[in-house]
Amino acid sequence: MDNNKLSRIKARMQEKGIPQLVISDPVPIFYLIGKWIYPGERFHALYINVNGDDHFVMNKLFPQNEDLGVPITYYDDIDDGAAVLAQFTDKKAPLGVDKNLPSKFLLRLQELGAASSYTNGSLIVDKIRQIKSPEEQKLMIESGAKLDKVMGKLIPWAAKGLTEEELSAKCFELIKEEGFEGKSFDPITAYAKGAADPHHITDQSKGKHGDCVILDIGGLWQNYASDMTRTVFIGEYSERQKEIYEIVLEANKRGIAAAKPGAKMSDVDKAARDYITEKGYGEYFTHRTGHSIGMECHEPGDVSAANDEIIEPGQCFSVEPGIYLYDEGIGVRIEDIVLITEDGCIRLNNYPKDEMIVVPDGE
Amino acid sequence: MDNNKLSRIKARMQEKGIPQLVISDPVPIFYLIGKWIYPGERFHALYINVNGDDHFVMNKLFPQNEDLGVPITYYDDIDDGAAVLAQFTDKKAPLGVDKNLPSKFLLRLQELGAASSYTNGSLIVDKIRQIKSPEEQKLMIESGAKLDKVMGKLIPWAAKGLTEEELSAKCFELIKEEGFEGKSFDPITAYAKGAADPHHITDQSKGKHGDCVILDIGGLWQNYASDMTRTVFIGEYSERQKEIYEIVLEANKRGIAAAKPGAKMSDVDKAARDYITEKGYGEYFTHRTGHSIGMECHEPGDVSAANDEIIEPGQCFSVEPGIYLYDEGIGVRIEDIVLITEDGCIRLNNYPKDEMIVVPDGE
Repeated sequence: MDNNKLSRIKARMQEKGIPQLVISDPVPIFYLIGKWIYPGERFHALYINVNGDDHFVMNKLFPQNEDLGVPITYYDDIDDGAAVLAQFTDKKAPLGVDKNLPSKFLLRLQELGAASSYTNGSLIVDKIRQIKSPEEQKLMIESGAKLDKVMGKLIPWAAKGLTEEELSAKCFELIKEEGFEGKSFDPITAYAKGAADPHHITDQSKGKHGDCVILDIGGLWQNYASDMTRTVFIGEYSERQKEIYEIVLEANKRGIAAAKPGAKMSDVDKAARDYITEKGYGEYFTHRTGHSIGMECHEPGDVSAANDEIIEPGQCFSVEPGIYLYDEGIGVRIEDIVLITEDGCIRLNNYPKDEMIVVPDGE
Repeated sequence: MDNNKLSRIKARMQEKGIPQLVISDPVPIFYLIGKWIYPGERFHALYINVNGDDHFVMNKLFPQNEDLGVPITYYDDIDDGAAVLAQFTDKKAPLGVDKNLPSKFLLRLQELGAASSYTNGSLIVDKIRQIKSPEEQKLMIESGAKLDKVMGKLIPWAAKGLTEEELSAKCFELIKEEGFEGKSFDPITAYAKGAADPHHITDQSKGKHGDCVILDIGGLWQNYASDMTRTVFIGEYSERQKEIYEIVLEANKRGIAAAKPGAKMSDVDKAARDYITEKGYGEYFTHRTGHSIGMECHEPGDVSAANDEIIEPGQCFSVEPGIYLYDEGIGVRIEDIVLITEDGCIRLNNYPKDEMIVVPDGE
């Protein structure tokens, strides 16, 4: 158990009036104890109490040989794990519950009267995870820099006649070649109409001369995720594509310029979105401007109009505006991750974007 | 929407006093509408009401071009999806909730007063999914038969000096070669000490002469999972290994013999477990005897002492007793999937198990 993180969590629990907390998701558990445990569909709960009575309840199928710094109660495969946890909870106090705890377990805890009330307690830990420590910042910077290299190697393949699926597989190959332990999500490698649909599923389509190609990729480096999007063009680009590209590029830059301590997350969204709206394409920018990132590619803390939280140094999030014109087969998205500093931000992705990238038609 | 399945679900809702139901998991949604939709961390709910007022609430990032047979309300990325659903729910009636709905959404529905009470509603659908239709039975049989072939091709590789990870990768290769669309779980390929730990994580160990090797593998065939375990021996086996193998084999057969309509799921567990206990190894059989299987490899409906549900024709589950002697580096598990018929069951895996399988030491 990382006692520094634990004490920050307990201080925040105190502050928020949540005296007890159940953490069940493997990611925050790794964040706290430094070990990956995947319980699958089985009940699994790291119970934190501000009074110090912490406890880990897990299935005995996952025996821990090393000391995790917290007492463990193992339950048998045929036991009711939630009931085992309820032996430790304070029935008269509110309980913060992991946002990802499957409802079946929350309903069972409620049935057992494990607490006086239940609330989403994940923001306690998520908020602390948002602020990256110097060690974490170093890994995020490294993860981004490695991804720049992958992007450089991937781009020439965009015009070699591969299907979207083949291009995605090639990307995964390059990610592993670069030393990442894996991808942080399935690479999006989409041509033309596919690029013009922000949630298109990679398919057997091939690109042709004049197509835009969205490359949205990311890797996991020592448990920390990177994520970047570039839009490139096969052989040449049209005036229309240029117009759209330049609007998205400017929106991306305005979003990044708005990313600084003291501003709101929604300000970043507004900076990017207002520019696109002003240019007449607001309705074609159909998603939030970005998401927080760290050990997971998508972490709580949206860059959207709905999130008025104040930005603090140490946060990492994406700025990824896009315009999607399905009927014209044009889709452009440009995404960078920023790391908030004391007075602004630095970009973790530095692959060029200012000039439109034209990939010569391959053989 | 599959109206036959839907009407069976509504009949069961009626019977169980759950007039409204929220389904959020991609698997039961596919089961009902025949389409895979992966909402990631976003709110997503197929709402079923016995009165016929069904509704699908989803993020507009997942536009559906075809008719799903149910009205869809799309919400924007910055909207509160749970609040959109709450516009459709009957506030004065109980609500069945998907067991896998993340707690953050259930807590929000509770906060909004979306229903008079909340209960785990998944058993409604899960129970119907347990009983495979003739079409589903055909796919389960095919999936099992294909897996027999993979096992046959994999076994010679167990003695060729591969690491556990390499052997697992080889297995995945063979699974794809056989035409499966993927694996139904990460293949377990474990030598000696690794085999003796039922939740060992595949590592860089290599097998040596005299080792037992557990091969626990499965593939997905047209969305239906297979799963089988065989334990084989490199070069030769000891008398001790033979003793353990024969106990596990007999337990596997007794479990299968107990699998018939009218018996309880716990009877199958008892038949296998009692024999192992009688032979003195009860404490070394550390997991449930099996799990239900279908579109997912692990589906609700354990084969364990805790599950007294009556077995019905059309059910599929695993019978997989094991004995794990960590100190001796001996682990044996033998697993078959059974499909319950009108008067007993058939095995979906028919790879031989009666004779101990010795793999000649490879080059």
